[in-house]
Amino acid sequence: MMGKNFKIGLLGRGTVGGAFADLLKQRAPSIERATGIKFEIVGTLSRDSGDFDEILGASDAIVELIGGIDPARAYVTRALESGRHVVTANKQLISRYCDELVSVAGGSEAQLRFEAAVAGVIPVVRVIRESLAGSHLEKVHGIVNGTTNYILSEMASSGADYSTALKQAQDLGYAEADPHEDVSGLDAAAKMAILARLAFHAPVHLDDVSCEGIEEIKPDDISYAKEFGLVLKLLGVAERIDAGMSVRVFPCFLYRGHPLATVNGPFNAVMVESEAITEITMSGPGAGGTETATAVLGDVVSVATADVQVPEQVESLELVPAGEVESAFYLHMDVEDRPGVLARIAEILGDGGVSVKSVFQRGLGENARLVMVTHSIAEKQFWSALDRIAKLDDLRSPPRAIRVIEEEFG
Amino acid sequence: MMGKNFKIGLLGRGTVGGAFADLLKQRAPSIERATGIKFEIVGTLSRDSGDFDEILGASDAIVELIGGIDPARAYVTRALESGRHVVTANKQLISRYCDELVSVAGGSEAQLRFEAAVAGVIPVVRVIRESLAGSHLEKVHGIVNGTTNYILSEMASSGADYSTALKQAQDLGYAEADPHEDVSGLDAAAKMAILARLAFHAPVHLDDVSCEGIEEIKPDDISYAKEFGLVLKLLGVAERIDAGMSVRVFPCFLYRGHPLATVNGPFNAVMVESEAITEITMSGPGAGGTETATAVLGDVVSVATADVQVPEQVESLELVPAGEVESAFYLHMDVEDRPGVLARIAEILGDGGVSVKSVFQRGLGENARLVMVTHSIAEKQFWSALDRIAKLDDLRSPPRAIRVIEEEFG
Repeated sequence: MMGKNFKIGLLGRGTVGGAFADLLKQRAPSIERATGIKFEIVGTLSRDSGDFDEILGASDAIVELIGGIDPARAYVTRALESGRHVVTANKQLISRYCDELVSVAGGSEAQLRFEAAVAGVIPVVRVIRESLAGSHLEKVHGIVNGTTNYILSEMASSGADYSTALKQAQDLGYAEADPHEDVSGLDAAAKMAILARLAFHAPVHLDDVSCEGIEEIKPDDISYAKEFGLVLKLLGVAERIDAGMSVRVFPCFLYRGHPLATVNGPFNAVMVESEAITEITMSGPGAGGTETATAVLGDVVSVATADVQVPEQVESLELVPAGEVESAFYLHMDVEDRPGVLARIAEILGDGGVSVKSVFQRGLGENARLVMVTHSIAEKQFWSALDRIAKLDDLRSPPRAIRVIEEEFG
Repeated sequence: MMGKNFKIGLLGRGTVGGAFADLLKQRAPSIERATGIKFEIVGTLSRDSGDFDEILGASDAIVELIGGIDPARAYVTRALESGRHVVTANKQLISRYCDELVSVAGGSEAQLRFEAAVAGVIPVVRVIRESLAGSHLEKVHGIVNGTTNYILSEMASSGADYSTALKQAQDLGYAEADPHEDVSGLDAAAKMAILARLAFHAPVHLDDVSCEGIEEIKPDDISYAKEFGLVLKLLGVAERIDAGMSVRVFPCFLYRGHPLATVNGPFNAVMVESEAITEITMSGPGAGGTETATAVLGDVVSVATADVQVPEQVESLELVPAGEVESAFYLHMDVEDRPGVLARIAEILGDGGVSVKSVFQRGLGENARLVMVTHSIAEKQFWSALDRIAKLDDLRSPPRAIRVIEEEFG
């Protein structure tokens, strides 16, 4: 197979684009020894230079590292139409337009690969698409945003509040100057839309993912929950529920023995579950320049040496309404320090069918607070009980609720 | 792509063969919806029935689940020669004859896949071959035998001795009636030979792997080491050392914060390290019937939909002699309870260049013992000091040494 050349058109010359060009330069000789194929970049499109049509004409594959929807969507579409393979790290694009792009790719037998769009260096897209191609996956969940995991780890270890931990993440380069996409959960939501689509072979759009961020998290709640053995993570969960599915991103507490509870700092980790495999857990650093470039390069070598199409979505799974999904909850209430408060709250929870697993009371007078963990219940039942609690005269501020994953491992 | 058939010849109808046939039957309809290809078993060879030539003639691919060298080697060779793809779970075969088989496969453009030979349900072969195709891997290490991990976990949690824990593993179906292959480390050695070959693109034969088992492990050592924060695992380590490599299997202690230290019971976990990716850790259940069948099925779908050859080995890495590899050690000595013992031992260690990190003395009179952990040193230097210590009159029984991985995480 010696002597074959594989020509790459590179779109974008930012952090990841630069890291990709460097990595390819460094690795090309040994990749050629292993595959017989010589990989080379034949043109680069940046903001100031390069002509897309010229680059496209000279390339076997396009590596799209511009990000965002426009003009990335148009470039990727035109590349696929012309039969060029596309490798992209663009989660915004794939989480919104995957079906459209897969259909274009199918028409021209071009490949579309996007490992780097999902979980940093963890090859979860390939594992789901290929290794588990024969599996009926029940659930994919994990920590898919390193920025928020760094912030929550920092709040837990130092007791810092949200804005202090965010500032620190920015100083260390783990968070952007405008952190909205990360801290709102939107970045994680885009990744979960992509993973859910692959896992369930069903169409999933970013808009199908319900999403809560970490901006409102108080260090108090992290330290109280610690007394129950709980650790806070921003989790993405895609799961089948009966004949439907649910795809969500939300901050939630895990028991310390949970495999995801020990994933700290700017790391990602994903668990894939099915009956036949029980579970596979994969973890690694979240997206940095060279990590993302490594994932892109793996895809580039694959489009040159393999021939695998992303299947078009073939199943149809209804989204289960958020209120019908079951969750356990951590619940924090600033209460007046007077007789009967616990009884009144417990009565409302009991009436609503909410069963309490653990409870403690802390502080006196103006600092009195009641903290509890419930068992799982349909969320709408919990929210309705919480509304009634919020109206009690006994509360000095609105109650705070955070989901809890009940599974205790090891 | 609808309407294409893919015909599988199944060799072996034991636990894994049966699980594969069941799983394929169950999953074929949804795989057909996703890929457009209908997978079917067209013939099965068991001890009592079936004709290999007839099955081969009718098949697009052979799934080899007989195990062992003969007749598996002949069947796989003939299948590859005739251009049929081969998927196998046979670690004995691949760890000894990979180069020969890859060369046969290359001649006829057939694919050879063996994900199920390595780490149960963890898709480490695919991740190394494809996702990290562009990476310069420094090290692959992990827990690749579930039987021994179960036994060591059980010894640690209950204080049971080796034979009691082995008996329990056998009762639960985690260990075979003849456990030699697992407890001697040979099973893990075969897997590490395969992983090292893939990671370093260099020829590695089972005989190149130095291997120690867990039969001699004493529960005492597990509990003493616990006081240093150490946990015992049977580890496989394949690493580059300078311009060479070392591939070894040995019981060793890890600090509790190490990602592999929390992998308990019949689980496997593998860490892959390189400069560009830092590290990826993957964990999941070790080989059970359905787990192995799932890995086989992933490979079967891949040979039908992709076209990736195992690269022939292209690098040449010398094995670093075992004595030149550096390790830290845990050291246990039954000593006479009299003045000067510690001084005499410390002098020998000091003379030999062995630096002691921690030490404690336990017991009195006939139960006196000295336990220490050293820093890393070239192994031959350590063994030579240990020989001198063994000759002291102060020891009531031979000293016991177990390697320690020094890295402390988190």
